[in-house]
Amino acid sequence: MNSANSDSVFSITMNVRDYECDMQGIVNNAVFQNYLEWARHGYLRSRGLDFADLTKRGIIVVVIRAEIDYLRSLRSGDSFTVTVRTRMASRLKLAFDQEISLCPGAEPVVKATITTTCLNERNRPYFHDDLSRLL
Amino acid sequence: MNSANSDSVFSITMNVRDYECDMQGIVNNAVFQNYLEWARHGYLRSRGLDFADLTKRGIIVVVIRAEIDYLRSLRSGDSFTVTVRTRMASRLKLAFDQEISLCPGAEPVVKATITTTCLNERNRPYFHDDLSRLL
Amino acid sequence: MNSANSDSVFSITMNVRDYECDMQGIVNNAVFQNYLEWARHGYLRSRGLDFADLTKRGIIVVVIRAEIDYLRSLRSGDSFTVTVRTRMASRLKLAFDQEISLCPGAEPVVKATITTTCLNERNRPYFHDDLSRLL
Amino acid sequence: MNSANSDSVFSITMNVRDYECDMQGIVNNAVFQNYLEWARHGYLRSRGLDFADLTKRGIIVVVIRAEIDYLRSLRSGDSFTVTVRTRMASRLKLAFDQEISLCPGAEPVVKATITTTCLNERNRPYFHDDLSRLL
Repeated sequence: MNSANSDSVFSITMNVRDYECDMQGIVNNAVFQNYLEWARHGYLRSRGLDFADLTKRGIIVVVIRAEIDYLRSLRSGDSFTVTVRTRMASRLKLAFDQEISLCPGAEPVVKATITTTCLNERNRPYFHDDLSRLL
Repeated sequence: MNSANSDSVFSITMNVRDYECDMQGIVNNAVFQNYLEWARHGYLRSRGLDFADLTKRGIIVVVIRAEIDYLRSLRSGDSFTVTVRTRMASRLKLAFDQEISLCPGAEPVVKATITTTCLNERNRPYFHDDLSRLL
Repeated sequence: MNSANSDSVFSITMNVRDYECDMQGIVNNAVFQNYLEWARHGYLRSRGLDFADLTKRGIIVVVIRAEIDYLRSLRSGDSFTVTVRTRMASRLKLAFDQEISLCPGAEPVVKATITTTCLNERNRPYFHDDLSRLL
Repeated sequence: MNSANSDSVFSITMNVRDYECDMQGIVNNAVFQNYLEWARHGYLRSRGLDFADLTKRGIIVVVIRAEIDYLRSLRSGDSFTVTVRTRMASRLKLAFDQEISLCPGAEPVVKATITTTCLNERNRPYFHDDLSRLL
């Protein structure tokens, strides 16, 4: 399911489930955010971090910006790959550059940059040290 | 539910449903795209266009880019307002500038620009005349 | 939105959102459980109980059985009513008899009985006194 | 992913995705219907039938009754198995007996019977011959 190839791009393979398609017969826009999130959380696990466990420990990692380019459609029966690369977007912000494609190397279906941060108990952004494992 | 105030901003009011909240107790990121879509489709109806009807007539309106800034959280019990403004982003692209806030005039919870186009049978973008009603 | 008519049937009115329709152009089966839940939680609020608040107080109310008869379909644009009646199904089980229809008195679209209980910290069922307000 | 063991029980293995968990930290009831559907559609494919293709050909297979017993919870990180067995529930109704469990042979998390039929253009139930492959 998961793999990290030579240049260290994390990826997971998923399948379109029929209930994720809308009346146009294609995957609904919002569902792609679910796919992207599931790949990011898989990446976390590959680095020894579990999203539910972080939440229980009070480390609240939140998405503060999503930029998503929808370039092609996905349909029932499609199998696809979601990649994850990380970089610091600023001192407190961790960005995930992600692509969804029908197979590795194919033209992307979706390109996205998801920017995250941690929120403390006063809802102020900070960068929790544990997240440095993701870089 | 719907309203168009003096400077012509369309808005709808919605409530957070408990099943839309995730293990952090807040509305999941992807759900906000559902809210934004539902407000856009309400705006279409207010201009005499129905999304399902467009689809049946073969007018496939798709989102090609979403930019979403998540500024605050929504929680169970929150009631909120989603606004819709439109503009041409290019000759073939219609952009929806949208804001979600707890009440009209309050600091936004989410700011988003959703860019759309129509796809013809060869999946090439075009601008269907009917959409000019949205401007 | 909410109402309790003369014979005390709680009901809420909702609209089909386009993202809730699947490739058949009708509301997907699982979505009806969302509708039913949202109506139950509205009923709780009408009796002074809030589901999120119960959860925070450690009162874990769970569904243990769902029986749902799908009699008709809902489509984009449909407005519908969800009713809620309660009864004790056993000493520890609270049942919600629910109907979804296009308008009050019309032939039902969905008929459902949702049976719930409370779980203690050892995941054993019990009946929390606060729920007696729902009867 | 898929397997049919000696006594011919079809099963698929899935993982709980974090966005499927609600504020109680467990998989929401409605999501289990998604899991059950995805397993049924996988079973269809294993018999040479594709749900999207059936829909395109005008063969509208619908769920007319769901009975679901929720016996245990699923949480973030859980991997689980969904089984599918079929039988005729009447001359026009095909029933799917399904179980979700953390591993084959373990105590079930969910037991369900999902009853389906085909709808003709006047929304009258019938049994399409192609579905006999599922028995």
